[in-house]
Amino acid sequence: MKLATLKDGSRDGQLAVVARDLKTAHMADAIAPTMQAALDDWAFIAPQLEHLYAQLNHGQARRAFDFDPANCMAPLPRAYGWTTGAAWTNHLLLRQRARGDGTPARPSDEPPMVQGAAEALFGPCDDLVLAFEAWGIDFGAGLAAILDDVPTAATPDEAHGRIRLLALVNDVSLRALAPDESAPGGGFLQSKPATAFSPVAVTPDELGEAWRGGKVHLRLRTTWNGHLVGQPDAGADMAFNFPQLVAHLCKTRPVRAGSIVGAGPVSNKDGARKGAVAPGYACIAEQRYLETIAHGAPSTPFMRFGDTIRIEMLEEQGRSVFGAIAQTLVKP
Amino acid sequence: MKLATLKDGSRDGQLAVVARDLKTAHMADAIAPTMQAALDDWAFIAPQLEHLYAQLNHGQARRAFDFDPANCMAPLPRAYGWTTGAAWTNHLLLRQRARGDGTPARPSDEPPMVQGAAEALFGPCDDLVLAFEAWGIDFGAGLAAILDDVPTAATPDEAHGRIRLLALVNDVSLRALAPDESAPGGGFLQSKPATAFSPVAVTPDELGEAWRGGKVHLRLRTTWNGHLVGQPDAGADMAFNFPQLVAHLCKTRPVRAGSIVGAGPVSNKDGARKGAVAPGYACIAEQRYLETIAHGAPSTPFMRFGDTIRIEMLEEQGRSVFGAIAQTLVKP
Repeated sequence: MKLATLKDGSRDGQLAVVARDLKTAHMADAIAPTMQAALDDWAFIAPQLEHLYAQLNHGQARRAFDFDPANCMAPLPRAYGWTTGAAWTNHLLLRQRARGDGTPARPSDEPPMVQGAAEALFGPCDDLVLAFEAWGIDFGAGLAAILDDVPTAATPDEAHGRIRLLALVNDVSLRALAPDESAPGGGFLQSKPATAFSPVAVTPDELGEAWRGGKVHLRLRTTWNGHLVGQPDAGADMAFNFPQLVAHLCKTRPVRAGSIVGAGPVSNKDGARKGAVAPGYACIAEQRYLETIAHGAPSTPFMRFGDTIRIEMLEEQGRSVFGAIAQTLVKP
Repeated sequence: MKLATLKDGSRDGQLAVVARDLKTAHMADAIAPTMQAALDDWAFIAPQLEHLYAQLNHGQARRAFDFDPANCMAPLPRAYGWTTGAAWTNHLLLRQRARGDGTPARPSDEPPMVQGAAEALFGPCDDLVLAFEAWGIDFGAGLAAILDDVPTAATPDEAHGRIRLLALVNDVSLRALAPDESAPGGGFLQSKPATAFSPVAVTPDELGEAWRGGKVHLRLRTTWNGHLVGQPDAGADMAFNFPQLVAHLCKTRPVRAGSIVGAGPVSNKDGARKGAVAPGYACIAEQRYLETIAHGAPSTPFMRFGDTIRIEMLEEQGRSVFGAIAQTLVKP
């Protein structure tokens, strides 16, 4: 099923069920007031939401209304956990090559993961409000899993069964602030200011065969100022699948319902290998790494005020799975 | 006023008001069901809680009951943000000296801060459950501020007025995991597994003259296996006060009600300077740094299963401000 959180002036918004074709929706407040409330008691709540979802898809829901992505908050407008891994390690290898440093890559059995700002997650059409272009504002197109409770030391197999929903993210980075901030080892606090989510979050079964091996085997389309700049295959080159990321997260501590795990910008190793489709890029930094490797310096600038970014994933039939993230960068 | 969250089998517990002497309490569910609910609407809720607090302190609350810290959850058993700074930079300088490395200290105008696991915060008497002593299990006695909404780019002065509550923390570190984990720059995910909080959180006015300049001018007492090992003055040597930490946190993004900011283990520079009272240590790592500097190697081991840790702060009259964190380290 597909779920959304609609703006109602409150901090957490209101839970709604959205039809498979994203054309209509129905409030779910009679079942659970918020997405967090649904996740807190998923085994009891989800079947009721599924029932409403079936009615909606069959045109039998009583008070269906037109679905408007602009009225969406993030599925969880505030979350108790937002951790993001760099699962497409090609991104890190390119960074290393571009920098020309000999820093050894992180051992391949441990995904690099960082905690992010979970207290203010943004809706798909919310403006991206940042003060200075000089911060090196970069989009980051990716996927995230929304979890149920996961006990400490859960295995990847156990973690797999605790993934309740999937969504798209725009995980924004301030590339000019990140190096100084992460140099002492403490991660990204100011340099990861804003993450936006797709209009709907979907249960993994909604993806059918495209959800297998803990990965989403569909292309993620990124359109920057109207130009398609990336369409990498999210199922390829993912060195750590979602269950592995979750297992890493909960190695020493429990994960609680509503915690969100991202997988970093999607990055394919080799465009040629994918056939006729050039994968392009899911974040500007990666394009700049490639330019630096090829020409000694980057040529693509970071985002400018007024820039638009659109992130979407289509099924093989061309239908949008999650709806589109469509944001504009603006000054405060 | 003093507030606590009592265990009731739910994820968020129930909000209670606790008398100044910590002897009695009164449910506050008629005012706000949870601590988060109170923080979400503080301007409206706080005066009602203050009224009940006054009644309780005067023995006039109708359904007062004996207050039992063992029945407390963390004030926020799950939070939308938990970020901790290293405000007592002496701790970092000692680490640097002990390692004998020439790494330059971080510029003094930027507090080192990391995001922590906010989704599972522990109560004052909850067991500290960790699998392996070999992880280098260390307590970390400190203070934390619980915030109201703070807008992006707020100044320290603005942030000061958004601090709603203060509490004690035991910010546990796995010292054997931390170096490898933080080396790539991503912060501490597995190595900061469990943070416990004092039985009550208190409004800053509750500290009277001890809360000034955005600091708590009282000694923080740490007792390890029954031995008092630390009593540093939390008002001394704090290089970044709480408003500065909050302003750093919100430089590029908003902070939302219920976000918690910690200040790291309390650390005084020089015992002699404080008069007759030796400050001791608030985390084992610091003692090991001192031993390494003096003797070339550490001699104090990290925690062992069965160890107890008690963290408390007394007013000048000897009365406990926050109640005590009193945990035992156990295997799963």
